[in-house]
Amino acid sequence: MDKFQNLEKLLNYEFKDKNMLKEALTHKSTKAAFNNERLEFLGDAVLDLIVGEYLYLKFKNIDEGNLSKLRAALVSEKSFANLSAQISLGSFLYLSTAEENNNGRNKPSLVSDAFEAVMGAIYLESGLEKVKEIFIKILEKEYKSIDLKSLGKDYKTALQEITQARFGVTPRYELISSSGPDHKKIFEMAVFLNEKELARASGNSKKEAEQSAALIVLQRIEE
Amino acid sequence: MDKFQNLEKLLNYEFKDKNMLKEALTHKSTKAAFNNERLEFLGDAVLDLIVGEYLYLKFKNIDEGNLSKLRAALVSEKSFANLSAQISLGSFLYLSTAEENNNGRNKPSLVSDAFEAVMGAIYLESGLEKVKEIFIKILEKEYKSIDLKSLGKDYKTALQEITQARFGVTPRYELISSSGPDHKKIFEMAVFLNEKELARASGNSKKEAEQSAALIVLQRIEE
Repeated sequence: MDKFQNLEKLLNYEFKDKNMLKEALTHKSTKAAFNNERLEFLGDAVLDLIVGEYLYLKFKNIDEGNLSKLRAALVSEKSFANLSAQISLGSFLYLSTAEENNNGRNKPSLVSDAFEAVMGAIYLESGLEKVKEIFIKILEKEYKSIDLKSLGKDYKTALQEITQARFGVTPRYELISSSGPDHKKIFEMAVFLNEKELARASGNSKKEAEQSAALIVLQRIEE
Repeated sequence: MDKFQNLEKLLNYEFKDKNMLKEALTHKSTKAAFNNERLEFLGDAVLDLIVGEYLYLKFKNIDEGNLSKLRAALVSEKSFANLSAQISLGSFLYLSTAEENNNGRNKPSLVSDAFEAVMGAIYLESGLEKVKEIFIKILEKEYKSIDLKSLGKDYKTALQEITQARFGVTPRYELISSSGPDHKKIFEMAVFLNEKELARASGNSKKEAEQSAALIVLQRIEE
């Protein structure tokens, strides 16, 4: 079996157009006449819709904010890199020698991009239903339980990473008020950036209130 | 003809499930048992894919960065609000009295959200191809020419709006260098936020270089 056949077997899908598969596996570092960036653009939107619909149908009673939260956990670079391991995607990539020596085959960003590109290629050839079938099988194999609790994140850390990377500043949290009896206190915390209040939220502990405030900002950024 | 039939005629689509259409038209201000937020979540992803694929197929030779740029112009709140006018969507919304008095029927955000929700509802009932058919017709009626030049934006203004709203600060631009003969000078400008350099870019004028630098940051935020 040639290289492509191995991947096709792992995907349980035979590509009609092998050139399209090759394009999906080709990193821009190769400087070839084509690379997987356009297919990645398409595949990204395909997977956003598939995961969005999957969650919409699975959770009839959760609101849009929580649907977004769940999707963000499932369609991240990290998540796609994990899913890619099921089909050994890294080993099939076309990379430059430099990128190869730089451990590119194992970089989550490269593998995740190629994963999206491969799904984009299947979409172009065979349509949405075919990608759904292939992707959901991989997704459900990876995530034994898909729900808010299992996919919950440390929102403060996530927010700090974003503001640090983009603007070189760290958010600051401040206690606004606390109320209620000692055994059932409610804390209200606000999150600031550059002296500007971004959001405030309440919780049963300072930490819980901080996490909720950070989440509000993250959702606003997402929108 | 009842209310729904008028909208259905404008859309050239008859809903199988009128309750789903009603949900898509119901703003959360009504405090009804349902509102259009979940369908909007779904419709947003549907339209991202439809526009992404449309651009992917129409522009065989432009890179992923420019595909993203074009899509951002077409799928914005402003764009969807404009498209909604073709089907008089504002007049079909269910709003609270307060929102009604607050001119909610004409708010771009409300109308755009409902537009996404209506497309999400058609997707659930009739699938992707049906939404494509309906949406692309509306899109092509609105945009006589879809290309980078016609859809080009003022990126500096767009960036400033974002940083001001989210972080309370305005970007600062600084000349890094200029080179070349007087009639053919190249300017390199950098954009800073909080003394942190976010990006730099070159152009035939300071303004052009600033626009390019702002665009680099906008694309990074988008990603």
